[in-house]
Amino acid sequence: MEGKLHILGFAGSLRTGSYNRALLRAATELLPENVTLEIFNLEGIPPFNQDMENTMPEKVREFKSKIREADAVLIVTPEYNYSVPGVLKNAIDWASRPYGDSVWPGKPVALMSASTGMLGGSRAQYHLRQSFIFLEVHGVTKPEGFVTVAAQKFDDKGKLIDESTRKIVKDLLQALVDLTLYYINR
Amino acid sequence: MEGKLHILGFAGSLRTGSYNRALLRAATELLPENVTLEIFNLEGIPPFNQDMENTMPEKVREFKSKIREADAVLIVTPEYNYSVPGVLKNAIDWASRPYGDSVWPGKPVALMSASTGMLGGSRAQYHLRQSFIFLEVHGVTKPEGFVTVAAQKFDDKGKLIDESTRKIVKDLLQALVDLTLYYINR
Amino acid sequence: MEGKLHILGFAGSLRTGSYNRALLRAATELLPENVTLEIFNLEGIPPFNQDMENTMPEKVREFKSKIREADAVLIVTPEYNYSVPGVLKNAIDWASRPYGDSVWPGKPVALMSASTGMLGGSRAQYHLRQSFIFLEVHGVTKPEGFVTVAAQKFDDKGKLIDESTRKIVKDLLQALVDLTLYYINR
Amino acid sequence: MEGKLHILGFAGSLRTGSYNRALLRAATELLPENVTLEIFNLEGIPPFNQDMENTMPEKVREFKSKIREADAVLIVTPEYNYSVPGVLKNAIDWASRPYGDSVWPGKPVALMSASTGMLGGSRAQYHLRQSFIFLEVHGVTKPEGFVTVAAQKFDDKGKLIDESTRKIVKDLLQALVDLTLYYINR
Repeated sequence: MEGKLHILGFAGSLRTGSYNRALLRAATELLPENVTLEIFNLEGIPPFNQDMENTMPEKVREFKSKIREADAVLIVTPEYNYSVPGVLKNAIDWASRPYGDSVWPGKPVALMSASTGMLGGSRAQYHLRQSFIFLEVHGVTKPEGFVTVAAQKFDDKGKLIDESTRKIVKDLLQALVDLTLYYINR
Repeated sequence: MEGKLHILGFAGSLRTGSYNRALLRAATELLPENVTLEIFNLEGIPPFNQDMENTMPEKVREFKSKIREADAVLIVTPEYNYSVPGVLKNAIDWASRPYGDSVWPGKPVALMSASTGMLGGSRAQYHLRQSFIFLEVHGVTKPEGFVTVAAQKFDDKGKLIDESTRKIVKDLLQALVDLTLYYINR
Repeated sequence: MEGKLHILGFAGSLRTGSYNRALLRAATELLPENVTLEIFNLEGIPPFNQDMENTMPEKVREFKSKIREADAVLIVTPEYNYSVPGVLKNAIDWASRPYGDSVWPGKPVALMSASTGMLGGSRAQYHLRQSFIFLEVHGVTKPEGFVTVAAQKFDDKGKLIDESTRKIVKDLLQALVDLTLYYINR
Repeated sequence: MEGKLHILGFAGSLRTGSYNRALLRAATELLPENVTLEIFNLEGIPPFNQDMENTMPEKVREFKSKIREADAVLIVTPEYNYSVPGVLKNAIDWASRPYGDSVWPGKPVALMSASTGMLGGSRAQYHLRQSFIFLEVHGVTKPEGFVTVAAQKFDDKGKLIDESTRKIVKDLLQALVDLTLYYINR
């Protein structure tokens, strides 16, 4: 194994001040050595319509090719209505289509969530993990990336200042890298 | 109880030839007496962005007010990647926002799915039912609206021709009406 | 509506010092007026075997008849391995059998969980709620009975001393009573 | 890699005539070369009680040591009340305890289900897969072992006679072996 590992990260919230987007930015500072993380903004991916599959929107084409080129993926997801945000699931759906051209099979993926409450996005993550079965994604299972009571862990500029949370993010990224190397070197 | 009951129905697929949209059209012919069903097309509802909540897109505004005016809701959902289509979840998310202005609490809702396989959309429906807990929606639990091997049950114009499936749709609509009257008359 | 409402409660842990059993005992002191709560101990219910259905073990017979006589049920569940304890699910399975003689249809049920961590048994509860669909149980949806960091909320005699948790239990019992009266008076 | 691979298999039903037990027996005839499959009967595993952890029942001790010695595990699960049978979950719970002495971490596991209906045990399997996250089990994801309309696929002696189902079982066992070798050789 030579060279750098490359991770593509995206957040399931389009809101500028989102804690989940802040958490994704924090990840860029907590990477293991020789690892790069590029942030992809889901804004501009339209609602999925199977009739458009063959004339795929440019933004979707870009999203798919960035996932393909990445060695691994980091998904940062809020929880909407006890499940995955539609915005995020929609992007994942696009990237799985058309049939036979999914970017997901075999891709190592790690999940993180920030929430202002106590359940930390867990309900969204378990639903995503069910999708992983179909998508044939390799999900990192340990540690689970839950950031609770987010308002206490970021400063007012959106910087992740809580040390134990920074360690969780660091450990999760390391676990994603380990899983990725494992599949590369098999 | 006087007058008609009014149901709003929408499908989680934007594809013109979708079996799920065909199933929704079939429902319009299988209504109990004194019940109307209006179909709402989710096309045009943009990806949810919390920053846009206060200047809600016109199409979302219309969607929310149609749900509010309806006595009950019929959701017809395909299954994408073992879960709810992002397109559908996105519409549900919009209708639950902004905080304090959700259209969902107390709304009676029935679920149907058509699939070309055997699991009939069940994985999507169980995820939606978890969202119902948060949304405080009253879901019809029996019968469950699963239409399997859809290709055998519709003709090539998208008409639902399978008699036992027509009966399931009829029974499900009756169950939705019963649940709705139950809450109206309590 | 005359007379008292009667709730049957049971915990999904057989351990004597279990926080979940302590939480169930706490509920007996936090009942609305004119409501009684009897605790049933699942100890002695053997593993379910369909071959034994017609010569049901005495303890199962008793369990079923106590649920039947109760106006409502309170289930207090720990979480084992991100799901429902086998012990608890086994008791629920017995009470649903033999086919056609389930005690569950139409029964109002509330869920509580104590956990030493942060997710408060939520994963167990959401799995139970999926079973409720089949069992045709009416589950209380609000409030959700999650008691986190239990070690801080009980004293060393197992008494629930945390005031805000006592209020949640109280509110949950009230919600169970409201749901029960609602079905009785319909 | 020399010698044989050894799989331990068990079924989540104690009923003698269970289709799931018949499916497990069928697996013994459909093994890849150089693979053995031993069937373990869950009968006699008592309800889990944490107070008994340190004086573990003999049957549980045997169960745990058989799983430890096996290279991989085959779980055949019916679906009770839209989830995992209590009997099966109880055995899995025991094998995960006491804390720090779980037999599960890193174990390759495949899932199969027979059902008389159409959903083939899928709801039970997805709940088990959520437990796998905590247990740190490596689950086979493809193919999924669903046997629907079981009454048509076994003869009246419980022999699996349906050819396409036999192929699914064969493929699933091969996938389990591949996953196991993969972890052994890493």
